Amino acid sequence: MRTLTVELGERSYPIHIGSGLLESAGEYLERLGISKKSPHLIVTDDQVGPLYLERLTTSLTASGYRTVHAVVAAGEKSKSLTVFEEVMTSAIEGGLDRRSAVLALGGGVVGDLAGFVAASFMRGVPFIQVPTTILAHDSSVGGKVAVNHRLAKNMIGAFYQPEMVLYDLDTLQTLPIREIRAGLAEMVKHGLIWDAAFTSWCREHAEELLNLKPESLGYGLEMGCAIKAQVVSKDERELGLRAILNLGHTLGHAIEAVGGYGELLHGEAISIGMAASARIAVNRGFAPAELFVETKDLLQRFGLPVALPEHMDEERLIAAMMHDKKFVSQQLVFVLPREIGTVEIVPDVTLDEVRQVIRELKEVDRRV
Amino acid sequence: MRTLTVELGERSYPIHIGSGLLESAGEYLERLGISKKSPHLIVTDDQVGPLYLERLTTSLTASGYRTVHAVVAAGEKSKSLTVFEEVMTSAIEGGLDRRSAVLALGGGVVGDLAGFVAASFMRGVPFIQVPTTILAHDSSVGGKVAVNHRLAKNMIGAFYQPEMVLYDLDTLQTLPIREIRAGLAEMVKHGLIWDAAFTSWCREHAEELLNLKPESLGYGLEMGCAIKAQVVSKDERELGLRAILNLGHTLGHAIEAVGGYGELLHGEAISIGMAASARIAVNRGFAPAELFVETKDLLQRFGLPVALPEHMDEERLIAAMMHDKKFVSQQLVFVLPREIGTVEIVPDVTLDEVRQVIRELKEVDRRV
Repeated sequence: MRTLTVELGERSYPIHIGSGLLESAGEYLERLGISKKSPHLIVTDDQVGPLYLERLTTSLTASGYRTVHAVVAAGEKSKSLTVFEEVMTSAIEGGLDRRSAVLALGGGVVGDLAGFVAASFMRGVPFIQVPTTILAHDSSVGGKVAVNHRLAKNMIGAFYQPEMVLYDLDTLQTLPIREIRAGLAEMVKHGLIWDAAFTSWCREHAEELLNLKPESLGYGLEMGCAIKAQVVSKDERELGLRAILNLGHTLGHAIEAVGGYGELLHGEAISIGMAASARIAVNRGFAPAELFVETKDLLQRFGLPVALPEHMDEERLIAAMMHDKKFVSQQLVFVLPREIGTVEIVPDVTLDEVRQVIRELKEVDRRV
Repeated sequence: MRTLTVELGERSYPIHIGSGLLESAGEYLERLGISKKSPHLIVTDDQVGPLYLERLTTSLTASGYRTVHAVVAAGEKSKSLTVFEEVMTSAIEGGLDRRSAVLALGGGVVGDLAGFVAASFMRGVPFIQVPTTILAHDSSVGGKVAVNHRLAKNMIGAFYQPEMVLYDLDTLQTLPIREIRAGLAEMVKHGLIWDAAFTSWCREHAEELLNLKPESLGYGLEMGCAIKAQVVSKDERELGLRAILNLGHTLGHAIEAVGGYGELLHGEAISIGMAASARIAVNRGFAPAELFVETKDLLQRFGLPVALPEHMDEERLIAAMMHDKKFVSQQLVFVLPREIGTVEIVPDVTLDEVRQVIRELKEVDRRV
């Protein structure tokens, strides 16, 4: 079992990573001092719930906790205000009060949705993340919670830190390969923004990571969480440094929006976005030419896409970017790589540069 | 012009109270350092907007600010997730970014709604309160923002402090008398929970306050804000002391819910709630018998109701209370008066005591 701490003063919290943690969830809640008088809400989805909800509730019940459940449809479409209101209804009808906790059992969608419920229900109740995907090693750390607006992603939310992250690696064994690849995209991102040595390690262990080899997976996730935790500790509310975590996300979010949040998984979209950032950096002489090739090869080693789907309309992608939170004072903010392990926040990328890279990335498979 | 400060460390903010402040709004925003590059959103309602929106935008435009507007229907029904989403749409379509401010021009409903928009839009942007009612001297101070769930009031929200409160007393001159009375209920409450001398002052100046005599009104609102600010400074997130501000609200919220948020104004409902709290206190020997009579007479001097409408069903009132945030670990929490100016938080009021006071308050007009 690995435990690390996100250092945020009085809002610091532990991340436990290991096997068999669901079976011990009750004890972990006890140690946190979660009330046994009040009922607690577990939010999960209709894919994860059937697999792991009983394991979690059995442990909680054995420790004397009462729980109610809200099971939402799997997928990004549940990150809506409509589903948010339904979960609130479950919380109220379940008799939750101010000492009740909200537990997110699932991937990034469930975590973001349940986290915004925890942040807003009665103006904030305790929140516990129980991630069940690789992608969630990223989203469950750092306190960004949100739902989508039909016009833009993650537009409605809060900074709300969990009391604890309980990361049971056993739950990853049932992930489909496409989800595994997409989840590893965020792990690779953590290397690219912060740590050249970890990036090399990822490249060398791509095969083992894709095969969920426990030792490599545990180490990779711990490193990913640790990098994220370091960045968040230094800038909780994204006033500066934290924005480097958005590598690949400026174009990535636009790709998801234009694809209707269904065509590409988040990790796949940001993989293309990271390739785009490397390409823009090379195009403007910000980074050497081989950086794009290295980045692209690394992502492809994980089976991730780097080409932009031909049918994605340039104008719609640009419009989606202009609705994003990263469009500030009429300028597009991109995170661009200088070299592997080092990025910078560049606030003056022009629309022409973006148009060019959109065209180049539609042809990347043909050209290479 | 009177200025006081809500002391909350790095979240401290000023409350400006005086005449002609709308006309100087642009200068106040400049002094706060609000960006002139980003557009700002003014949220108002269809009663206040026609009266004061132009006055506010003229001042902002003269200082070089760009604004967009969201005008919602007047009344508690706009404190819904549906209207919240509509205001978010206005924010996105208006091109707001992370440096944009949300301004609430209106009473408590607009303040609570716009405040939750400010707290949640892009996970939080600057918020400015421009209250236009007497009631809002209470709701605009302290950072409690929320919308209602159909099952319970203020169930979905945040603690989110404004950057500034700009309280232009000129806007109060157009208030209907019923709104004036209901607004003064919160001023009276601030006396009852904190300050016997101010309560006496309120009693002696009831006539002048109801007639909006500027000197008395300015002093009364400053005192009301100051008491609220002191309490909030000591307990921002309502972990203890702050709950005393809920005097009259346990039953008051239930009355509003059962009346469908339309029959009685918030101030009217908490007036009945304050009478109920005094009665419960007397019934359980917590306070001397004359306390109920004094409280009732004081409220009636302001033309406020103290009797519970006959048609309000006991069981529905009880059920609504059990859905309230003040129902914790299966017990009803009431704020009860010891004497004028002193209250205590009492967590063990029984359902029988509440049933008794509901019956007594339905007959109060007949008995007295």
